[in-house]
Amino acid sequence: MNTAAVVADFRTYPLISALGSVQTLADRVAVEWADGRISPFHHVWLRDNCPCQQCVYSVTREQVFEIVDAPDDLQPTAAHIDAEGCLCLDWHDGHRSRFDPGWLRAHAYDDQSRAERLAGQPQSHLWRSDLQLPVFEYTALMEDPAALLQWLIAVRDIGLTQVRGVPTAPGSLKLIAQRISFIRESNFGVLFNVQSKADADSNAYTAFNLPLHTDLPTRELQPGLQFLHCLVNDAEGGESIFVDGFAIADALRSEDPASFQALCEIPVEFRNKDRHSDYRCLAPIIALDALGRVAEIRMANFLRGAFDTSVEQMPRLYRAYRRFMAMTREPRFRLMQRLNPGELWCFDNRRTLHARNAFDPATGARHFQGCYVDRDELLSRILVLQR
Amino acid sequence: MNTAAVVADFRTYPLISALGSVQTLADRVAVEWADGRISPFHHVWLRDNCPCQQCVYSVTREQVFEIVDAPDDLQPTAAHIDAEGCLCLDWHDGHRSRFDPGWLRAHAYDDQSRAERLAGQPQSHLWRSDLQLPVFEYTALMEDPAALLQWLIAVRDIGLTQVRGVPTAPGSLKLIAQRISFIRESNFGVLFNVQSKADADSNAYTAFNLPLHTDLPTRELQPGLQFLHCLVNDAEGGESIFVDGFAIADALRSEDPASFQALCEIPVEFRNKDRHSDYRCLAPIIALDALGRVAEIRMANFLRGAFDTSVEQMPRLYRAYRRFMAMTREPRFRLMQRLNPGELWCFDNRRTLHARNAFDPATGARHFQGCYVDRDELLSRILVLQR
Repeated sequence: MNTAAVVADFRTYPLISALGSVQTLADRVAVEWADGRISPFHHVWLRDNCPCQQCVYSVTREQVFEIVDAPDDLQPTAAHIDAEGCLCLDWHDGHRSRFDPGWLRAHAYDDQSRAERLAGQPQSHLWRSDLQLPVFEYTALMEDPAALLQWLIAVRDIGLTQVRGVPTAPGSLKLIAQRISFIRESNFGVLFNVQSKADADSNAYTAFNLPLHTDLPTRELQPGLQFLHCLVNDAEGGESIFVDGFAIADALRSEDPASFQALCEIPVEFRNKDRHSDYRCLAPIIALDALGRVAEIRMANFLRGAFDTSVEQMPRLYRAYRRFMAMTREPRFRLMQRLNPGELWCFDNRRTLHARNAFDPATGARHFQGCYVDRDELLSRILVLQR
Repeated sequence: MNTAAVVADFRTYPLISALGSVQTLADRVAVEWADGRISPFHHVWLRDNCPCQQCVYSVTREQVFEIVDAPDDLQPTAAHIDAEGCLCLDWHDGHRSRFDPGWLRAHAYDDQSRAERLAGQPQSHLWRSDLQLPVFEYTALMEDPAALLQWLIAVRDIGLTQVRGVPTAPGSLKLIAQRISFIRESNFGVLFNVQSKADADSNAYTAFNLPLHTDLPTRELQPGLQFLHCLVNDAEGGESIFVDGFAIADALRSEDPASFQALCEIPVEFRNKDRHSDYRCLAPIIALDALGRVAEIRMANFLRGAFDTSVEQMPRLYRAYRRFMAMTREPRFRLMQRLNPGELWCFDNRRTLHARNAFDPATGARHFQGCYVDRDELLSRILVLQR
């Protein structure tokens, strides 16, 4: 049923439960499903979501109808369930709408249906120093969509993965990043070379140790995924260190709720400047989503501006900031590993903080390449692979 | 004074008022300026912001010191103003810090200093249908940094500009966009071609009218600036229409505060999908900044998913959404103009909604090219040009 519409939408809506009956009320209909659930649908919602070819352009699958063009007192003159199990409505201007029961159930907004959808969302798996690092093979990721999907789900839910067997020719990183989508350019380029440089425009391009941080907190949207690919690593030192920023925020929330609150509320400036650019971004270190869950960490001490908050708040902010930094140094959270040539890290830059120990450039060459891909691209690729 | 530091920082901090005296208190010092203002600075803030070469790497201008390494009970053993007017502190571990008075005043966080900085921030100039469209000449923008700066400030503060005298060779748009910075790629490419196509993956690529919208509300970060460059426009119809989304939100806030509130609070899904991608973003239509000012509009009816909110909220959301759409159609807000070959629009995609009338491809060719540049890049370029 409704095969054409399903194909054009690139999504399928299996029949969870058949439509049993429909009752018309003042501003809505109430349908009862075969499994007993009752779902109200407002008239305006139904008219707005009419899938007919007059309302939706089939080639782009985008709406051409605009709900503002329907009258305020919109009412169906009739509502029934047809022989194919679809909900049919006749509108008083003569328009007719017909809804597939699978689609309707997938979009029902009674409390129970909404709670089910929320529960079905992907969950972050928090980790500490004892994480069993998810490791993937380059060849499989390049050739096998099922392996690719498994990797991307690990990136999404765990936020830290390693890939092995990657060619060490400069630029090879592009090939695997583009398995997801296009690369997000920044002022450091499309691919950036992490090497010690005399004229460094970031501490990343020195041999210094780098404390745990996210990349580009100086930008409104921090890059979603970061790749770091090892081409050469003959220098002593330079081990990679990771912590799960969500796990630390979670621990801070229970161990020092006032500090957690301060980092959610008080914006901090991050900045990066050189001869050609001057980036500044003001945002809190911990961002929550609409449901109060930790959604993002923004942190890089070496890119931070002077704190600018009221005299009363300043001690509270410092207490929280110092506590958070101290936690990033605690062994319970830290995973340390040296990256070898042909290996790469791929991690959630807005969750997993990364650091490196100082290295000694006199003992040998060290050359990593890096790039970014946004979270939108990761989630889109997962959805396409799951079709 | 302190010339080396000022040059390395790429910013200058003029001496607004000299330091008069300094008094040491339990957890802070209080300085009195020659103009009578008193600014407290906490010990921890001063130690954190020490600009010495041990604490900040002069090449990158980035901090290497981390405040978590200072003791909790950090105290200066002495504080004085030196012969050059700098604030000098001796710390009890032997470290010494010296602060330029211009820098210190620029970062003072007493209430008056903070209020001054806030008042000095750029303000949006709201506009309606009678906007005197800011128009700029391509050649001047390509050659004269002062003209470039003027243009970019208009984009920032007004959010809608036109550029004339642009070459009509395909790809010319890149040259002017790159006067700001790199172009932000999307799933529609680096440059996208706005033409009527048989296999359109967006209603933008049809000859339909497009209602007022922002581009890519399907992404977590909507592109900051949008460019639309006219190469050929022989078709009848297709006029460009713009409204200031901030002006509409502002009017809605005073004319129908409950609807304004609903659009700030209730997230809405935007989505775009084709054979290779499936983007979804859930966010409110109006976003406010930390001070409660309208900071962003996210709106495209043809990319919107079915509303998913509680049964109680649904009528409130529809009422607000319909009211907002109706306002975008009101003549008091709308500016309409046909774009001619060699002209381009450059506008704030997160503020200025754009639309086009339907055109008739049978009457002639119509070919626009478009691209995006992010707000971070605009603000950075302005700061660099203002140095």
